[in-house]
Amino acid sequence: MNLSKITIIGLGLIGGSLAWGLKKSGCVRQVVGVDLDERAIDYAIQEGIIDGGSKEIEKGVDRSQVVVIATHVGLIPGIVKSVSSIASDGTIITDVGSVKGKIVEEVERSLPSHLHFVGGHPIAGTERSGVWAADFGLFQGKRCILTPTSKTDSEALGGVKSIWEAVGAHVFTMDAGTHDRVFGFVSHLPHVVAYALINAVASVRQPDNILDFAGGGLRDYTRIGASSPDMWSDIFLANRENTLEAIREFKRALEKIEDFIKAGNADGLEEELRRVVNIKNRMSK
Amino acid sequence: MNLSKITIIGLGLIGGSLAWGLKKSGCVRQVVGVDLDERAIDYAIQEGIIDGGSKEIEKGVDRSQVVVIATHVGLIPGIVKSVSSIASDGTIITDVGSVKGKIVEEVERSLPSHLHFVGGHPIAGTERSGVWAADFGLFQGKRCILTPTSKTDSEALGGVKSIWEAVGAHVFTMDAGTHDRVFGFVSHLPHVVAYALINAVASVRQPDNILDFAGGGLRDYTRIGASSPDMWSDIFLANRENTLEAIREFKRALEKIEDFIKAGNADGLEEELRRVVNIKNRMSK
Repeated sequence: MNLSKITIIGLGLIGGSLAWGLKKSGCVRQVVGVDLDERAIDYAIQEGIIDGGSKEIEKGVDRSQVVVIATHVGLIPGIVKSVSSIASDGTIITDVGSVKGKIVEEVERSLPSHLHFVGGHPIAGTERSGVWAADFGLFQGKRCILTPTSKTDSEALGGVKSIWEAVGAHVFTMDAGTHDRVFGFVSHLPHVVAYALINAVASVRQPDNILDFAGGGLRDYTRIGASSPDMWSDIFLANRENTLEAIREFKRALEKIEDFIKAGNADGLEEELRRVVNIKNRMSK
Repeated sequence: MNLSKITIIGLGLIGGSLAWGLKKSGCVRQVVGVDLDERAIDYAIQEGIIDGGSKEIEKGVDRSQVVVIATHVGLIPGIVKSVSSIASDGTIITDVGSVKGKIVEEVERSLPSHLHFVGGHPIAGTERSGVWAADFGLFQGKRCILTPTSKTDSEALGGVKSIWEAVGAHVFTMDAGTHDRVFGFVSHLPHVVAYALINAVASVRQPDNILDFAGGGLRDYTRIGASSPDMWSDIFLANRENTLEAIREFKRALEKIEDFIKAGNADGLEEELRRVVNIKNRMSK
């Protein structure tokens, strides 16, 4: 796919890194950024992350062949609508949202037939955020999941795939429902749990300097629990059913350990903990 | 404190690193290791971690001024008893166990009056284990908590303090009960939670390759959940009441988030998550 213009809406960590990676790859002549924050645009132009930028969607997407929406999950369907009303024939719209089912369903219900949409989710978040944290190598060797449906145009799917491959990602396809179930467990649940854990520890009043001793294990949770609260609140709600199912499953696993501790059952407890080591070995492969 | 001989019982990560750090510090003439595993002793001698070693406690502690017990928590009181029956007058016995209340109580009940005991806990564990992972700089800049009681000899306390300071640790004192409450929250709870989380995710049958997508947050839990299951089972049971209280508190925090998600309450949810960022800022200080 040889592109003359691609527009990234939302110059955050993901949008900025994608723009920059695409510029470095040379697969597109012009990378344009759209963001409400003028400082983000100025910074991105100055650093060579984008070729040009605008605060207005209309200006930004003018004559773009591909529009990537890299905002918070809750904003995506609305932005697709804005883009749809102005994009030219055959424009491919894609996104980077961490939740796919709701977005894909909502977008497909209202997308005009002369445009294409492909849902996407690069697995490359860090606890950092903003274009200031952008890194053109962020997606190198990482996975990117695309969630085509029966309505997805295969050329549009191929186009989005080639964009992610241009920045070094390994592209997988998955249906949106499976995606949301998987990430409800492997990503959204771990974040819920990290937030709850840190809040629980901080609720301890006696001794009041308890956080000074976080080195003993708690600190590992702060990376995961330090990410943007508005972004995660959005994600948990957009993936409500799956997140709630994952929480229920987690509570069952927690109560199993709790019961072994209550009963003073050393063998049962150790066996329950030992399963984790086996699982970890499967993960390292 | 100028020592002629110190004995470390249990050449694991902590015992091995302490032995090595003491040798490097030059504050003791002879560092002897005791371990049931002959390979650990051979390795430690070969690497210059200890001056000599033995599989037998009796040989190892002969004429030692300080004996450090660096085994799993559950074994410590029994080993103190063995050491007590052979140690010479004035020997200082200390330990590195992650739980202090039960150990200190049990030891003080039975310790002969010609010996001294000081409970200790260096905050320096990693997911690695064994003398093969020993590092003479492991305690540099780390905290070490000592838990003296009204019965503790102040010279013995000073002696143990100077040993930890010799390897670069910052020494704090705390009563054993407070210690166990603090570490129930900041260390034992995070481990319980990590074990439960990984088990919950692994229990998902559909899709069966769910662990392939662990990059989205789960992987951060595997460091903490990969530590030795027998060691942690031991710790959870030795600190049973505090661990159970911490689990209860955590479940309350989790259910708060769960309820906001259930209710679709975006403002409440975001506010609940935002507290974590403030707490994190307090921790970084």
